[in-house]
Amino acid sequence: MAVQTVAGSTDISLGPAVALSCRECGERFPLGPIFACEMCFGPLEIAYDLPEGDPEGLRKRIEAGPNNIWRYAPLLPVPADVAEKPNTNPGFTKLVKADRLARELGVTGGLYVKDDSGNPTHSFKDRVVAIAVEAARAFGFTTLSCSSTGNLAGAVGAAAARAGFRSCVFIPHDLEQGKVVMAAVYGGDLVGIEGTYDDVNRFCSELIGDPAGEGWGFVNVNLRPYYAEGSKTLAYEICEQLGWKLPDQLVVPIASGSQLTKIDKGLRELIRLGLVEDKPYRIFGAQAEGCSPVSRAFKDGHDVVRPVRPDTIAKSLAIGNPADGPYVLDIARRTGGAVEDVDDGRIVEAIKLLARTEGIFAETAGGVTVGVTKKLLEEGVLDPSLTTVVLNTGDGLKTLDAVASTTGPSAIIRPNLDSFREAGLA
Amino acid sequence: MAVQTVAGSTDISLGPAVALSCRECGERFPLGPIFACEMCFGPLEIAYDLPEGDPEGLRKRIEAGPNNIWRYAPLLPVPADVAEKPNTNPGFTKLVKADRLARELGVTGGLYVKDDSGNPTHSFKDRVVAIAVEAARAFGFTTLSCSSTGNLAGAVGAAAARAGFRSCVFIPHDLEQGKVVMAAVYGGDLVGIEGTYDDVNRFCSELIGDPAGEGWGFVNVNLRPYYAEGSKTLAYEICEQLGWKLPDQLVVPIASGSQLTKIDKGLRELIRLGLVEDKPYRIFGAQAEGCSPVSRAFKDGHDVVRPVRPDTIAKSLAIGNPADGPYVLDIARRTGGAVEDVDDGRIVEAIKLLARTEGIFAETAGGVTVGVTKKLLEEGVLDPSLTTVVLNTGDGLKTLDAVASTTGPSAIIRPNLDSFREAGLA
Repeated sequence: MAVQTVAGSTDISLGPAVALSCRECGERFPLGPIFACEMCFGPLEIAYDLPEGDPEGLRKRIEAGPNNIWRYAPLLPVPADVAEKPNTNPGFTKLVKADRLARELGVTGGLYVKDDSGNPTHSFKDRVVAIAVEAARAFGFTTLSCSSTGNLAGAVGAAAARAGFRSCVFIPHDLEQGKVVMAAVYGGDLVGIEGTYDDVNRFCSELIGDPAGEGWGFVNVNLRPYYAEGSKTLAYEICEQLGWKLPDQLVVPIASGSQLTKIDKGLRELIRLGLVEDKPYRIFGAQAEGCSPVSRAFKDGHDVVRPVRPDTIAKSLAIGNPADGPYVLDIARRTGGAVEDVDDGRIVEAIKLLARTEGIFAETAGGVTVGVTKKLLEEGVLDPSLTTVVLNTGDGLKTLDAVASTTGPSAIIRPNLDSFREAGLA
Repeated sequence: MAVQTVAGSTDISLGPAVALSCRECGERFPLGPIFACEMCFGPLEIAYDLPEGDPEGLRKRIEAGPNNIWRYAPLLPVPADVAEKPNTNPGFTKLVKADRLARELGVTGGLYVKDDSGNPTHSFKDRVVAIAVEAARAFGFTTLSCSSTGNLAGAVGAAAARAGFRSCVFIPHDLEQGKVVMAAVYGGDLVGIEGTYDDVNRFCSELIGDPAGEGWGFVNVNLRPYYAEGSKTLAYEICEQLGWKLPDQLVVPIASGSQLTKIDKGLRELIRLGLVEDKPYRIFGAQAEGCSPVSRAFKDGHDVVRPVRPDTIAKSLAIGNPADGPYVLDIARRTGGAVEDVDDGRIVEAIKLLARTEGIFAETAGGVTVGVTKKLLEEGVLDPSLTTVVLNTGDGLKTLDAVASTTGPSAIIRPNLDSFREAGLA
């Protein structure tokens, strides 16, 4: 295993985070830029000493905090004074009560859209990168890096610029120009790799073990245990915005599956800390049919996720071999949820449905969650009488191509009233 | 003058708004969907009965309000229960302390970027449209409309969808596909007009006076007095986010000039209400050189703004005959500010400067304000030792073309360490 060693990483102070712990064998390691267990190669995650015993005090402390994820600093692997440091300060995005969408879908128990397009670079990736930045600072890294096909590259570029890190981001060389611009505009280095996204990933793993990568924090590799915790804030915000209540049902997109597992972790923490009532909730995973290995495994009753070759317009979810797939299956089964998928046609329909009813223009990943919500309601799997939260993790402006061919003017007219009347729109 | 009459518009309840008042002759009219003085054809604006005499109480009421513009409902032409109605709820966007940009520009007194790319459709237009929606509701309109070349179309489409209005938006027929998609995705009618933006505007004025336009609220025409007030919230938020302090200097973009005049109005209201200390502030207007009629008039010492034919990449500011130009000149002169312009090259440089230092990807209008800030500092007109706020009113994702040709990868490499080392980026 490649372990980056950085001077001084033995007296790391990251708030309530006390150790790294293996999700498979439970072995513990000191906080540092490592991501796989030295004993069993299982994935590492953060172990906390959380502020238990005073839920009222903790709730007040959170509510008095800033309007971003740092209000939850007591529950995150970040220093106590994190809000004073330069960061993009994502989070506390809108939880939109979606009454018009609810009527169309027949939901009576309250339907909400958690809209992460309101983040600084308009995707949930700002949350995870913000935490990785603080870990990188603590470990003394000077360069932020990642492999990406889009959203993550922009989030890393922006966060590095704001926080004063150098950045060097790796992408497949043949990405669309729009994504390249978004990744490069923040002035960091952007490197196109002649190869597929898998080649990019493989190259990054090599670089971590090489002197050329010394001092580099790869947010989704050697900083991954910290980075991944950023998704817990979605759970915290949803519950706080519901008035410190757990929703009954959540519909969450699956790419690597990490986000879904961390939302579950966040909800369980809130219960343990007494910030919300201890009651059941169900988590539903959403995939695109063209990349649905976890949905497939769920339906087949398997514990193992068989990798696929992605072929879908939902590119931000197109991970054919999702690392956290087995954990997602566990959570869906344990909570009484499910994993479902929708085809590209239903994704586009769902993007338009959400836009038409609520004025929210989601990226394809949001089309996947709204589409799966609709499908699960039709199948009778989601209960329409329960409080339901659907995640939109990105912005339609970044995936215009998905709707461009089927979205256009109702009419083209000459600039006069006769021409307007003929068009039949009055 | 075309006046839309709507049943029931005599007992309109829009919070502290009590009348429409002519900015030229002072004549008053009852609240209604009219926009020009029946006596002198001057523009109408809202007259208020503001909650004076209890600044501490008002401040607490605001601070206890929602994290959007409705926290300022006591100062806006909206019903008291506005936060309960379906609306996109824009505002309370980030005021970013821009220390790295300040260092590059030599500002020592505190430099802030008010970043309105965080609004629901990622431009300040969500603020003005949100107010227009409430006026449209009060006047019984059922269709929301506007003429637009981009940002406004998206804001109207989204707000109409969310609030349950029909929408019908008019654009020149030959807009870029991206803008067309953004205007059409919310499911309202989108009409392409064979002609220029001026033709579109002229057609909308005709439609207001015609039976075909009955029941239609044009946000930037017959609802303009309400719509325009939305920009006051920028002033309120900036002062509240500075700890209920006035900034010393503000740099504001000029399109029609309306936004700048309303920011000044908002600041004066805060002083009158005792919410901030009564002290001088300076307002600076920013234009693109390719559309700089107000800057030209300011420099020439004229009171009249001579129309120009726009030719600039800053299309959201490209109004050659800005209706509020003379008022902008008054404010710049009264407050000891100035109006300045920058060419397209400096706009692009400024977009990149802001992205590189603060991780904020601004649209071209943000490049104009940052570029003008830099130029005014170089000229010694802006005082670097004073607190300065620069507005970014939109999102770089909407004007990718401005930077696309000069923003790309640092290197293209093969997926191996040797190739990476050769690129010299380690």
